[in-house]
Amino acid sequence: MAATLHFAFVLALFTGQAIGVNNGLARTPQMGWNNWNALGCDVSESLLLDTSKKLVDSGLRDVGYNYVVLDDCWSDGRDENGFLKDDLKKFPSGMSAVADEIHKEGLLFGMYSSAGEMTCARYAGSLDWEANDAKSFANWGVDYLKYDNCYHMGRFGTPKLSFDRYKVMWDAINGTGRPMLYSLCNWGEDYSHTWGMSIANSWRMSGDIYDSFTRPDDLCSCTDASSPFCVAPGSHCSVLNIINKVAPYVDRGQPGGWNDLDMLEVGNGGMTDEEYKAHFSFWAALKSPLLMGNDLRTLSASSLTILNNPAVIAISQDPDGRSVARIRREMNAAKDKYGVGEIQVWSGSLYGGDQVVILLNAAGEDARISASLEEIFLHDGPEGSAPQNNEEWEVYDLWANRMEESLAQKILDAKAEDLPKLFKDANWYNSTELSYKEGLKKKDARLMGKKVGTIKPGGSLTAKVKRHSMEMYRLKSVG
Amino acid sequence: MAATLHFAFVLALFTGQAIGVNNGLARTPQMGWNNWNALGCDVSESLLLDTSKKLVDSGLRDVGYNYVVLDDCWSDGRDENGFLKDDLKKFPSGMSAVADEIHKEGLLFGMYSSAGEMTCARYAGSLDWEANDAKSFANWGVDYLKYDNCYHMGRFGTPKLSFDRYKVMWDAINGTGRPMLYSLCNWGEDYSHTWGMSIANSWRMSGDIYDSFTRPDDLCSCTDASSPFCVAPGSHCSVLNIINKVAPYVDRGQPGGWNDLDMLEVGNGGMTDEEYKAHFSFWAALKSPLLMGNDLRTLSASSLTILNNPAVIAISQDPDGRSVARIRREMNAAKDKYGVGEIQVWSGSLYGGDQVVILLNAAGEDARISASLEEIFLHDGPEGSAPQNNEEWEVYDLWANRMEESLAQKILDAKAEDLPKLFKDANWYNSTELSYKEGLKKKDARLMGKKVGTIKPGGSLTAKVKRHSMEMYRLKSVG
Amino acid sequence: MAATLHFAFVLALFTGQAIGVNNGLARTPQMGWNNWNALGCDVSESLLLDTSKKLVDSGLRDVGYNYVVLDDCWSDGRDENGFLKDDLKKFPSGMSAVADEIHKEGLLFGMYSSAGEMTCARYAGSLDWEANDAKSFANWGVDYLKYDNCYHMGRFGTPKLSFDRYKVMWDAINGTGRPMLYSLCNWGEDYSHTWGMSIANSWRMSGDIYDSFTRPDDLCSCTDASSPFCVAPGSHCSVLNIINKVAPYVDRGQPGGWNDLDMLEVGNGGMTDEEYKAHFSFWAALKSPLLMGNDLRTLSASSLTILNNPAVIAISQDPDGRSVARIRREMNAAKDKYGVGEIQVWSGSLYGGDQVVILLNAAGEDARISASLEEIFLHDGPEGSAPQNNEEWEVYDLWANRMEESLAQKILDAKAEDLPKLFKDANWYNSTELSYKEGLKKKDARLMGKKVGTIKPGGSLTAKVKRHSMEMYRLKSVG
Amino acid sequence: MAATLHFAFVLALFTGQAIGVNNGLARTPQMGWNNWNALGCDVSESLLLDTSKKLVDSGLRDVGYNYVVLDDCWSDGRDENGFLKDDLKKFPSGMSAVADEIHKEGLLFGMYSSAGEMTCARYAGSLDWEANDAKSFANWGVDYLKYDNCYHMGRFGTPKLSFDRYKVMWDAINGTGRPMLYSLCNWGEDYSHTWGMSIANSWRMSGDIYDSFTRPDDLCSCTDASSPFCVAPGSHCSVLNIINKVAPYVDRGQPGGWNDLDMLEVGNGGMTDEEYKAHFSFWAALKSPLLMGNDLRTLSASSLTILNNPAVIAISQDPDGRSVARIRREMNAAKDKYGVGEIQVWSGSLYGGDQVVILLNAAGEDARISASLEEIFLHDGPEGSAPQNNEEWEVYDLWANRMEESLAQKILDAKAEDLPKLFKDANWYNSTELSYKEGLKKKDARLMGKKVGTIKPGGSLTAKVKRHSMEMYRLKSVG
Repeated sequence: MAATLHFAFVLALFTGQAIGVNNGLARTPQMGWNNWNALGCDVSESLLLDTSKKLVDSGLRDVGYNYVVLDDCWSDGRDENGFLKDDLKKFPSGMSAVADEIHKEGLLFGMYSSAGEMTCARYAGSLDWEANDAKSFANWGVDYLKYDNCYHMGRFGTPKLSFDRYKVMWDAINGTGRPMLYSLCNWGEDYSHTWGMSIANSWRMSGDIYDSFTRPDDLCSCTDASSPFCVAPGSHCSVLNIINKVAPYVDRGQPGGWNDLDMLEVGNGGMTDEEYKAHFSFWAALKSPLLMGNDLRTLSASSLTILNNPAVIAISQDPDGRSVARIRREMNAAKDKYGVGEIQVWSGSLYGGDQVVILLNAAGEDARISASLEEIFLHDGPEGSAPQNNEEWEVYDLWANRMEESLAQKILDAKAEDLPKLFKDANWYNSTELSYKEGLKKKDARLMGKKVGTIKPGGSLTAKVKRHSMEMYRLKSVG
Repeated sequence: MAATLHFAFVLALFTGQAIGVNNGLARTPQMGWNNWNALGCDVSESLLLDTSKKLVDSGLRDVGYNYVVLDDCWSDGRDENGFLKDDLKKFPSGMSAVADEIHKEGLLFGMYSSAGEMTCARYAGSLDWEANDAKSFANWGVDYLKYDNCYHMGRFGTPKLSFDRYKVMWDAINGTGRPMLYSLCNWGEDYSHTWGMSIANSWRMSGDIYDSFTRPDDLCSCTDASSPFCVAPGSHCSVLNIINKVAPYVDRGQPGGWNDLDMLEVGNGGMTDEEYKAHFSFWAALKSPLLMGNDLRTLSASSLTILNNPAVIAISQDPDGRSVARIRREMNAAKDKYGVGEIQVWSGSLYGGDQVVILLNAAGEDARISASLEEIFLHDGPEGSAPQNNEEWEVYDLWANRMEESLAQKILDAKAEDLPKLFKDANWYNSTELSYKEGLKKKDARLMGKKVGTIKPGGSLTAKVKRHSMEMYRLKSVG
Repeated sequence: MAATLHFAFVLALFTGQAIGVNNGLARTPQMGWNNWNALGCDVSESLLLDTSKKLVDSGLRDVGYNYVVLDDCWSDGRDENGFLKDDLKKFPSGMSAVADEIHKEGLLFGMYSSAGEMTCARYAGSLDWEANDAKSFANWGVDYLKYDNCYHMGRFGTPKLSFDRYKVMWDAINGTGRPMLYSLCNWGEDYSHTWGMSIANSWRMSGDIYDSFTRPDDLCSCTDASSPFCVAPGSHCSVLNIINKVAPYVDRGQPGGWNDLDMLEVGNGGMTDEEYKAHFSFWAALKSPLLMGNDLRTLSASSLTILNNPAVIAISQDPDGRSVARIRREMNAAKDKYGVGEIQVWSGSLYGGDQVVILLNAAGEDARISASLEEIFLHDGPEGSAPQNNEEWEVYDLWANRMEESLAQKILDAKAEDLPKLFKDANWYNSTELSYKEGLKKKDARLMGKKVGTIKPGGSLTAKVKRHSMEMYRLKSVG
Repeated sequence: MAATLHFAFVLALFTGQAIGVNNGLARTPQMGWNNWNALGCDVSESLLLDTSKKLVDSGLRDVGYNYVVLDDCWSDGRDENGFLKDDLKKFPSGMSAVADEIHKEGLLFGMYSSAGEMTCARYAGSLDWEANDAKSFANWGVDYLKYDNCYHMGRFGTPKLSFDRYKVMWDAINGTGRPMLYSLCNWGEDYSHTWGMSIANSWRMSGDIYDSFTRPDDLCSCTDASSPFCVAPGSHCSVLNIINKVAPYVDRGQPGGWNDLDMLEVGNGGMTDEEYKAHFSFWAALKSPLLMGNDLRTLSASSLTILNNPAVIAISQDPDGRSVARIRREMNAAKDKYGVGEIQVWSGSLYGGDQVVILLNAAGEDARISASLEEIFLHDGPEGSAPQNNEEWEVYDLWANRMEESLAQKILDAKAEDLPKLFKDANWYNSTELSYKEGLKKKDARLMGKKVGTIKPGGSLTAKVKRHSMEMYRLKSVG
């Protein structure tokens, strides 16, 4: 019965009745790059242009990362007419020219401001200057606005106050006539997951991420996922903290509007390779925007082979746009050095009846983790009542075909003229030629992972999962 | 002393001083059917008409279920005058004709909208279109409006904001002149149990129910019954979760306005027969609306014999309209597979001085549960000071006379012309001929259950209660 | 140093700078009687008049209980001009005549309404009718208004909303020119302890009391004294629950405005004599209004000897108006049958440098409880830095001189003409002739209790305290 | 990478982009004296003048304490034009003359009012009188306003309400043209740490401090650092309570606006010498204002040698203005007599690449505490990714050069004419001649502490720390 409901619901989402955020953008979670996590205020014209070039040369643009987003610290006060001035010491050609260059690379350009009197780094903010600033962004050719929350002058504390404050800029950018993806960054205050989709393409739901997998930090003091209030969302939230916070409302993301778990830390040095894989996999499966946060000018081969995994990105860009949900959380696992020890199982439905499952070991020791079909298809009918429980399923490991690091290194070292052959030899997934939606329709092998087993009707999925690691599978029914 | 208070209070409720919700509806909790739990967006004219016929043929209409409520997904945008269009592909005769057909069956017709820019399934919502939509409902002949909470544009967060938003539709439907039962569905946000009765006939007090008896789910993350705030009320709330949440304010229901625990899951496949009996019994005793949520076209005999138990429905429709209250909760019981294990005792006063008691075993093993008269009559005088503690009580099991499944199957299989005799042979309770109020006055045997014992003054009620089950008794004083 | 601060602070309160609530009433906590706890809606003219007479004949008026407060259920709708009609079936002489009779007995008359569309028992409420209703109260000769919170139409949720709603009536009653004590009853919602003193003479700080000493009840679900929010303040709050809730802000009471812990349950039958003594003692020491809540027409001798203890009432009516504060709470005491087990020590300064100490045993077994002078004078200098720690103190038991029950019974049984002699023989404290302030100045023996020991400098106060009981002492310095 | 971010961020703060609070004051945390903690309402002209003289003679003015702040209880109502009258009995020369005298000593003058109808001691408050009162302060020559929160008439409960209420006075004092440091004192209500910096130079973040190191008290009932709500911030908050509350948002302080942890208790008698050292060290390292709260007229030598330690004050006045952050909290330490037992490690970056580390033992027994460089430099790169982890560090004990008590006593006993020589012999740090910024640039030995060891790359800092004590170190890289 509930299964019927499930498909009926999905149907409704795509029969043209949907009228929500109507700028047409972010029908799947946006992908791109943002400088903040690695570089903070150290921004410049050359950074943006070098990064844009690297996005093309590394193949990352073609795999889907098409937004280049400049974060805080780019302005130089306001002119006499109240318009923001771009800092010409940092951007000598001017922001408009920078945008042009980025567009020439086949990329889109994002910028940043704050719904406050100042930005977080204390540059001029857009609060009460929204119309002016939206015009500037439109004139410069901006395609994306990240809109932060610092120095808000006390204008929060009820959903209505925050909604109204952020809606002013939404109306302003729509008023310019230029489509801009609107990335709301109020750290989840005032239940933004309940109203973000009415005025934004994504909404942050926690304090800032930092480059640690599980370490609790006092500056990200709020950990109670059931409470909407927090004395300070913070700036040192671990990957695990963010995953745990979003669990109660993963269902709020939908085509056009997404829970934003913050930018990626992959490649920044604070996590192991297994941890970065887990971080990236969850961001994809939870339908967060995928904004790389490392310095691409010094991109390593190992980072590249995480960020370019098309089988995982296909989960992010699945056209159904449904997040995984947590179906089990065990807190009695072996503790790591920070006293953290959790085992979790996540599951979610994909386009065409497939299912994605993640077995997470955020504990101090390796563990064998099992999930029954009853659990995996819980959301299609609890207590074993889902019809999928009676089917047989093929299991595909989504990381088994990860690119060899040596090949990635070759690409990173290659001359421009050698890249086309290298990409071809690598069987590179180019989403600008074959969208993920089309690739999934055609069951393109690069998006499917590698078959590693089968689950019989009524059976279970079981895997040994290393400490601080996860395994991620696509399940396909064979009836 | 407190006993005096108790009767005085009841008296006050019925001396004509009461001036609250004045549409005259829902003097006892409404009963009927709603498609969402079983069928979601899969709605159609034939569904409503087939279901209406089944309500009559199964005898369920006569036992009291008289509202046929169409949930989300029925509209097709707005016309040029801003009025909602019914989806003529799903309802070819038009909604007005559908209403007529339902009325012809002796049933009442309910519809759905949301106090947001969209409904939960992303159809057009009624926020800021209330007057128009109320007119449409009145013109179509609607008798009941379920009014949801999705996409509310940030207009919540203080009771006043939510109250004001929901009051607009209350005023609008009253303005049409057509009586409509107003079923407020804001999931308990903003303390709706403290103001719902001023503008609605019932108010939801939790996230959506799902078809599980005890399983905690991350999508119903809020379990602290003492906290008014919740990051996301959720959509996967178990029967036990809902019972536990309503416990602090069961006294808010009253003739004309009721705590709504959400629609029933009886018959949807995720619970055992004992669990469904418990689910149904609590909804009746807690004075929740009783909206069946299964697909009546495939109604099973076992489900029918739960839903048609007049001795339990008589608790729901008791004219005093007082909910049971929890008088004991033990958390140290044997855990079930989800780690849940609770024993609870609930008690409440009924019309004419009777008392209803439920012994709930929501634990992993069978248990012997006892409740003393001191506990049972706690609300008439704590610490044994209630006069009822000194009386002798007959104990009636309200499930002992449950209809035989074979008889129910016969009814379900019968031709229309054979039904009258079958109902007669079954001694069917027809509330359209003898209201529950009159039946209770006359102590109609079908409403009384079966006598199974006696409690001496100062004594206790004791029963063996199976795991994930309950026992429900009516106590009658013999002085 | 801090001791200096302490005395300086007290000084400031009485140097004429204080400008707060300026109706001049309740300079010490109000005393009187209210019908609700014992009789609820069962109100009548004869009840009020009989009770008034009993107040005089029992000597309770003279000991200080001078307000006769009629609670809910007295009205009969509004007339065509929007004025409340008194129910002439219940009050055949009309409310004005009733007030006159009460005044003739040397008593003051209190009435009740609610800042909502209805009162709690669903009679007409005063919300949006404040000016009219204040006029009626003034015309009838009312001296006291208890103003409740039911059916508030969602107008709460921020302190400003509640403050503004209650201020309307404050302004209205002041506008009549008749002094009325304003007793705000919003159950502590919206931090009323932070603003109540600006517009009221007392403010309730919890849900309704019920007649139990320690039993937790689901209908008083909120127990976290540090949280300002509660899903439902409730109506079944035990004495211990209320004591624990007020602990963080006992310092908010002050001459003119008091934390109201709700009406007394003494004499209603749900507690033991020791529990009622503890209940009464805490209400006095915490500077709550002392409104008797029993049916005085059937007043028992044991209840009378609790309610008429002048040594305890002198704590309540101490002119300094400072509440005791909790200086120790031990949670690991033996549990009672409800699983509750606490030991607490409370201490507070009195007029003239005396100190009151309560040793509370709210546990399942008798206990020896000690409190050092360092603890007792903690608020005059933590960690032993208070000068009082170096003084010697006489210890007076405030219950040692409790009236003999046989004498009390004689008074209750006496003919009117025999009362003067009886009162004289009993050495009755008549506060209408000698105010508590003057009595304390003169160190009247009846207010001092009985000397039971001495504490040496640096020493401790120790007592054996029975389960569910307390000991209460006045300490007097001998330098 | 994160290290790059760190330095970039610091850079941004000082490139002239910052536009926040623009009165130019409190670029480092303010220092001075306030009478409340020791003397409460016992204020007078002679107190202020005697204290001013003592500030000069004790050398404390020159070490940095330059504000003399008069707290509550100084007024005598309003005149017929609505202006506050200074109490001429307490201040016979009038407030303007007092200010002149204070200025003549090279000191600045602070006063007090409350954003309520009354001050906390029930003198006339400034709510709705802001413009008048700001004019009075300006006319009197006031340089600093402490602005309290009592009797706010319900105008709080959302950040906007509190912000707006406090902004009125901010605008008023700025409107006078006289620069006044604005010290906001709303006890941390309504998330003042998120908006205080837009309208104030400092903002209190907790209830009032009291003179105890760890003792929990019911009157400071709120201890959950992650919750923004509290039923009553309270007046008995221990040093440890305050430290623990500020931990989640230590990063909110910045040049021009600071988290205010309340006035110092050093010298008031409730703590040991070690506890006062710890209290003072944390206030300095957390960048709280440093307002002495003792009676300087009876200043002891031991107190003086805490308050005049230039090596610790240099942490407070570090020009980078970055607070330490907590990097470890262990709750399983030996309990003290109040049941409290915690070990904490705090670390923060200083001007010029130095680092300050505090090892806190708030437990019942002495303990050996270690912190690795990985932990110490966590905020420059988690999980050992900070470059500082690979450097060698010299360790300087900031209390090793504490002045000898005998010398301090000599200064306190000296005649005025002998002071210059004494100060010279003592190598007294005179910040009016050499600012801390310049002193730090020059690595003045008095600001550096005493070298006590070295940490090798990848190594750890370890110390034996006595119970209720701390050790505080400055680390200097040797590359």
